[in-house]
Amino acid sequence: MTGTIATTPAAGLSRLSLNQKTTNRWTLPEAIDGCVRAGLGSIGVWREPLADIGLDRAKALIDDAGLRVSSLCRGGFLTALDDFSFESSLDENGRAIEEAATLGADCLVMVVGGLPPGSRDLPTARARVAEGIGRLVPVAAEHGVRLALEPMHPIFTADRGVLATLGEALDLAEPYPAEQVGVVVDSFHVWWDPQLEAQVARAAGRIASFQVCDWITPLPADTLLSRGMMGDGHIDFRHHLELVTAAGYDGDIEVEIFNADVWAADPDDVVATMKQRYLDVVVGP
Amino acid sequence: MTGTIATTPAAGLSRLSLNQKTTNRWTLPEAIDGCVRAGLGSIGVWREPLADIGLDRAKALIDDAGLRVSSLCRGGFLTALDDFSFESSLDENGRAIEEAATLGADCLVMVVGGLPPGSRDLPTARARVAEGIGRLVPVAAEHGVRLALEPMHPIFTADRGVLATLGEALDLAEPYPAEQVGVVVDSFHVWWDPQLEAQVARAAGRIASFQVCDWITPLPADTLLSRGMMGDGHIDFRHHLELVTAAGYDGDIEVEIFNADVWAADPDDVVATMKQRYLDVVVGP
Repeated sequence: MTGTIATTPAAGLSRLSLNQKTTNRWTLPEAIDGCVRAGLGSIGVWREPLADIGLDRAKALIDDAGLRVSSLCRGGFLTALDDFSFESSLDENGRAIEEAATLGADCLVMVVGGLPPGSRDLPTARARVAEGIGRLVPVAAEHGVRLALEPMHPIFTADRGVLATLGEALDLAEPYPAEQVGVVVDSFHVWWDPQLEAQVARAAGRIASFQVCDWITPLPADTLLSRGMMGDGHIDFRHHLELVTAAGYDGDIEVEIFNADVWAADPDDVVATMKQRYLDVVVGP
Repeated sequence: MTGTIATTPAAGLSRLSLNQKTTNRWTLPEAIDGCVRAGLGSIGVWREPLADIGLDRAKALIDDAGLRVSSLCRGGFLTALDDFSFESSLDENGRAIEEAATLGADCLVMVVGGLPPGSRDLPTARARVAEGIGRLVPVAAEHGVRLALEPMHPIFTADRGVLATLGEALDLAEPYPAEQVGVVVDSFHVWWDPQLEAQVARAAGRIASFQVCDWITPLPADTLLSRGMMGDGHIDFRHHLELVTAAGYDGDIEVEIFNADVWAADPDDVVATMKQRYLDVVVGP
């Protein structure tokens, strides 16, 4: 990562964070370089590219670049019914917690997992998630890591995340101290919710991460890659920013876009577009 | 419609209704014949194929066949911001109400409409829907027709129905008498909802229609045609039937499947499969 130096973020961009998934073909060192070139102060790191270069090297590169880590993605997948798979998942989450602690990440994003194979029993899957979170909270607390429960759009309830609403995430989080278990407000996942205003207000003090990307129509064929650049779809980001701000959130605003076209584009161009759209439709004009 | 006679539904199938969309290539007379051949007692009618043959002829054919009309699909589309479009939509809903009355349909299903073109303002769109329902209730009451508000899966919030949860539908319905404004419980649309059990219980006396079809993964590329035959996906239909039964619903159970593969198959085969799956995974074994 020669050639990059720690920078002060450009005007208006001090809270903007690049989630690595937005520039999916960049390695972690390339993404760090890209953030520095773009004048960003923060990055959301994924575990797979982190593993590719190793935790110690990643830590050194991020520190040298002067970047914050707005989140580590991701822990979770806690719906397995058989004990062996469930315990293995808890172990894996333990490793994710250690990584988040080492990187000084603001939170570990928890994607809780979909229905177990062959099961149609949502209440049981949800109960398993609650059990898993209960097991992980002391581990996270010991490492000073905040778990961030991510409610996912109901398009993903079956195969990715049985946690479908912010209200449900808060039900799960509230038995624990806010500094130990927070929630993710991801515009793509929550924008449709008629309870959005009430539940974001209820989340005051527990918003661990605010992520943005757009809901576009027609929805791309692969639902996992269906997220759009801010401004290309139907979401009122300024309204969302007002809501989380009223709830006391003043942390990073992370852009996380899963989209084949975005991934096929030149990552530096994607980052440039992301910065402009962030200024145009998220924080301004 | 020569060759068909009124029949008593086959054992175990007395509540099963064929929504016309499941056999999309059949005309209304063909669908009526198909119901009779299959020993079904009820049909869910769509307005477009109804218009193709005319209301009077449809009424005569349905009566001759001894079929109930479990629902007329559909009214709604009430989110237009400009007054001309909004008033036109109210007029169109008035015609739908008259048709539902003539057919003796159990309810008029209301698909409320998505965001107006260019708008990202969900709260305003939802307020417009509430205004429209308020305007239509006296018209429906005058004709003895029950409006059935259909919450739609959040995959459709942007472009089809801003009413996203059963709770929101009940909020909208409850200012009016239950016999005038009910709700649709469609498994596909509501299965993911962590509030499902509580909201179906709350809907006691207001469930105007219970529809079933499955959530399948991977989701077909065209989200409008993404619904599966019961048993092919992730939904626990027996759980849903228990919930609506506990809430006092004992009406028809309508199968409504939008799916390109189902539509490409021989409609009589589709109806045969539908009957078997209904017995296997909805009401039995």
